[in-house]
Amino acid sequence: MKIIRSIKKMQQLAVQLKKQGKAIGFVPTMGCLHEGHLSLAKQARLDADITVMSIFVNPAQFSPNEDFKKYPRNFKRDCYLAKESGVDIIFHPSQNLMYPKGFQTYIEVEILSKYLCGKSRPGHFKGVATIVMKLFNIVNPDIAYFGQKDAQQARIIRQMASDLNMDLKIKTMPIVREHDGFAMSSRNAYLSPTQRKDALVLKNALQKAKDMINSDEIDVGKIKKQICRIINSVPSLKIDYVSVVNADTLEDIDVIRGRVLIALAVKIGNTRLIDNAIIKR
Amino acid sequence: MKIIRSIKKMQQLAVQLKKQGKAIGFVPTMGCLHEGHLSLAKQARLDADITVMSIFVNPAQFSPNEDFKKYPRNFKRDCYLAKESGVDIIFHPSQNLMYPKGFQTYIEVEILSKYLCGKSRPGHFKGVATIVMKLFNIVNPDIAYFGQKDAQQARIIRQMASDLNMDLKIKTMPIVREHDGFAMSSRNAYLSPTQRKDALVLKNALQKAKDMINSDEIDVGKIKKQICRIINSVPSLKIDYVSVVNADTLEDIDVIRGRVLIALAVKIGNTRLIDNAIIKR
Repeated sequence: MKIIRSIKKMQQLAVQLKKQGKAIGFVPTMGCLHEGHLSLAKQARLDADITVMSIFVNPAQFSPNEDFKKYPRNFKRDCYLAKESGVDIIFHPSQNLMYPKGFQTYIEVEILSKYLCGKSRPGHFKGVATIVMKLFNIVNPDIAYFGQKDAQQARIIRQMASDLNMDLKIKTMPIVREHDGFAMSSRNAYLSPTQRKDALVLKNALQKAKDMINSDEIDVGKIKKQICRIINSVPSLKIDYVSVVNADTLEDIDVIRGRVLIALAVKIGNTRLIDNAIIKR
Repeated sequence: MKIIRSIKKMQQLAVQLKKQGKAIGFVPTMGCLHEGHLSLAKQARLDADITVMSIFVNPAQFSPNEDFKKYPRNFKRDCYLAKESGVDIIFHPSQNLMYPKGFQTYIEVEILSKYLCGKSRPGHFKGVATIVMKLFNIVNPDIAYFGQKDAQQARIIRQMASDLNMDLKIKTMPIVREHDGFAMSSRNAYLSPTQRKDALVLKNALQKAKDMINSDEIDVGKIKKQICRIINSVPSLKIDYVSVVNADTLEDIDVIRGRVLIALAVKIGNTRLIDNAIIKR
């Protein structure tokens, strides 16, 4: 496995690989890898000739009051796990290289970024879209992989790629969960054992919503009420949002129909957790 | 010369050309071609194996009160001139294809877009950056050509390409002028013969500024005053801005030093004209 820190070298290698007719599968990450990330790398390995993973904690997607500084970093462990999962190249640039003095170009997916996490994290998706575009231009992938865990992010990247005529495929892969159903996230590292136990209610609330819909409940108001009730039964959790939206437009709906995204965000202590489920009906 | 209207076909052809090892030179235009555009195509022909010119009047770079609808269009004549200048492929997509329903992704070069024309044309450079990025992703050029006539645009595209790590070269080509020194522009078609004569004062004002600087005048206040005096001597002209700025940052300067951009924008009737000169000192 190669580790590349230079933008130019990564770009040149990508051009060279393309000239050799190799398909590049790309997994952009902020490191602190878990089984979710690794599932993306494994899929890339199946689909493409070369798997590139970027590891870069992107300052542009954190607000000043968020956890950029303390975001968990463990590059050595990440390299080990990436190699085990068949990654061929790790791209690991420095912050100064990615955001040099005078940097000022940003991409906004204006409508989709307004909803859900966009409300409580202004500027977040602008930072995400911008770094992903930069990475796409550096790594030159044929297919790029994103986790369904960040449902809104995946939807936004797909929109950006389509709107800006980017010549690549976006694949969104299912949420990977712990044995008890808790969605994997790098931020889970912040949780105390008690918090970890309390946070399991997210998955339970989603399950309840799915059960209701499978029992033909289509009234979104009733479903949301149940979700809130379940989450609020755990005093340590504070709801940021409980949303049931059209999975394509991310707009609120009143009635369950078509592809529906049930998305939750809660705070537990200083940690913000999200989880979601997509249901077709 | 090939005329391609489909995004997919253009993209596929570009990929194919790249695979054959061909270098693509790209000249994005809004049509109504004049010698300025053609000078870009001729340079592309010298530098690259294949010259692609896009002809697309981009609605996103016009404000609602601007001249999008009446912007001069003459596709047949453009094709003739492009062919004469050695263009191999014209890319001429429809508005619906470039901005389909639900389009919502925009690029902003945030600082450079604030100055000069950005003040009187809010959103203009956002529209420019976005369409150029789209076209770059479709045409996949090795080198792209822009005219110095639109000095701020050229500077912004260069910044965007660098900030977003786009793997291509940007070449800015000199302003092409009529025999009397009047800068060529598609919008000159709007001018009556009297207006055309009056507007020549732009070039005269720039010349005066250059003469002053060559005679070691470094006081920007004095230079601007002279420019304004000359332009205001023609009653039909209304100054939008007279700016003397750092050619790299586009920030106002008080003293002539380094690479300096002298940029003018005036209105004559309903027509907005710009002209500029770069001086090194």
